[in-house]
Amino acid sequence: MADSERIWTAALIVIGDEILSGRTQDKNVAQIAAWLNVQGIRLREVRVVADDSGAIIDAVNTLRISNDYLFTTGGIGPTHDDITVDAIAAALGVEVEIHPQARAILSGYYETRGGLTDARLRMARVPAGSSLIENRMSGAPGIRHGNIFIMAGVPHITAGMLDSLTGTLEGGLPVLSATIGCWVAESEIADLLASTERAHEGCQIGSYPFFRQGRTGANFVVRSTDAAMLDRCVADLSARLERGGWPVVAGGI
Amino acid sequence: MADSERIWTAALIVIGDEILSGRTQDKNVAQIAAWLNVQGIRLREVRVVADDSGAIIDAVNTLRISNDYLFTTGGIGPTHDDITVDAIAAALGVEVEIHPQARAILSGYYETRGGLTDARLRMARVPAGSSLIENRMSGAPGIRHGNIFIMAGVPHITAGMLDSLTGTLEGGLPVLSATIGCWVAESEIADLLASTERAHEGCQIGSYPFFRQGRTGANFVVRSTDAAMLDRCVADLSARLERGGWPVVAGGI
Repeated sequence: MADSERIWTAALIVIGDEILSGRTQDKNVAQIAAWLNVQGIRLREVRVVADDSGAIIDAVNTLRISNDYLFTTGGIGPTHDDITVDAIAAALGVEVEIHPQARAILSGYYETRGGLTDARLRMARVPAGSSLIENRMSGAPGIRHGNIFIMAGVPHITAGMLDSLTGTLEGGLPVLSATIGCWVAESEIADLLASTERAHEGCQIGSYPFFRQGRTGANFVVRSTDAAMLDRCVADLSARLERGGWPVVAGGI
Repeated sequence: MADSERIWTAALIVIGDEILSGRTQDKNVAQIAAWLNVQGIRLREVRVVADDSGAIIDAVNTLRISNDYLFTTGGIGPTHDDITVDAIAAALGVEVEIHPQARAILSGYYETRGGLTDARLRMARVPAGSSLIENRMSGAPGIRHGNIFIMAGVPHITAGMLDSLTGTLEGGLPVLSATIGCWVAESEIADLLASTERAHEGCQIGSYPFFRQGRTGANFVVRSTDAAMLDRCVADLSARLERGGWPVVAGGI
């Protein structure tokens, strides 16, 4: 198999009672998924787990083995409910240690903010053998251990960490996509979609219905790693829809 | 153990390539989590999986056994990428059949909308032995099979299905919560939070930092199933923060 055909996968563990209680709307899944796609890595599974050591350990040990990369978000702050580092160290069977570079970063960051207290020093704790991920937004860095990337829970901090990782992970071909929309009930064109997909190997067509202003419509997302195949599939799908009497809106509705 | 102390749990499987690609921001996790909480049921884990039969089957068979209830969202429409019913039937080892009542509902719904085509009839397919969940927003019903609840992917349709299930599931005591906020870096009060939580058995304190308008703050969410315990913990935490020189904003910032 050519290197270009290898599919690289990632899993994401979102750690936090606040997501499972419905208090906080997660925003990390969408931003990490979109970022991974550009790196040529597919997000294959997400698990949202509580601030519970056993749950984190189980998820980490399942997903780090079954994927090329594992990302986690949440639980790396200074407070008692931040248990991600300890749980991941336990999952890996390694000690927790103070990372000297993280200590130096935090020491500098807090120099004009009241000093490096014991609670703040907690954010320099890493599973032994880790390197750091630059935090461009605030003090505490992210953590990399092997194929595991331990990121912040606050979305704009995670965004900065992703930015600093851009281009550093090996991946395959990114999945390209194109969207077209129609004012049609998807149930009217289900057969048309299925037969179009069958006619274009290497392309997948997703159908996403919506209801707006009392009208029924759907967007169709065509995905492929091959730009020419993608273009042909979109052109064919558009032609079939137009022939059926449903004008197509390029880019989606 | 008294019935009131039994903790009822649920898991949720979000099914859809559109979530894993980052194209669509999931809204079902938060709304199902909040709804479950009111029913006295705790959402313990969420998994987001692709439109992939094997992935759905694995997740269903793991989570339906380890939780009182299992919810799924997505993949129950009329198109070729809607494989949830088939995958769940396979997971359960039962046939897929047309549910007569679902057929009648769809037949009525589509009477003035072009008739019940084969594609639309797909939405009457259920794992053998299922009952239906009322869809108050559009035609196709949700599906219940034992402790599994198969819901729509479109959030406002799922909201209507949850509404029709309200009060029908056995649960325990709902988790109550109260939020207070402070303009303080959470790293400054990490010890205060931990010792307050230790002093109030039956209460958990979550700390959720934020950065707004160049200032650092945090909201603290206290959770308990006991209203009196919750009140005492919030009062104590507020008093400790005020004594430390950090004015408390009731309800959070």
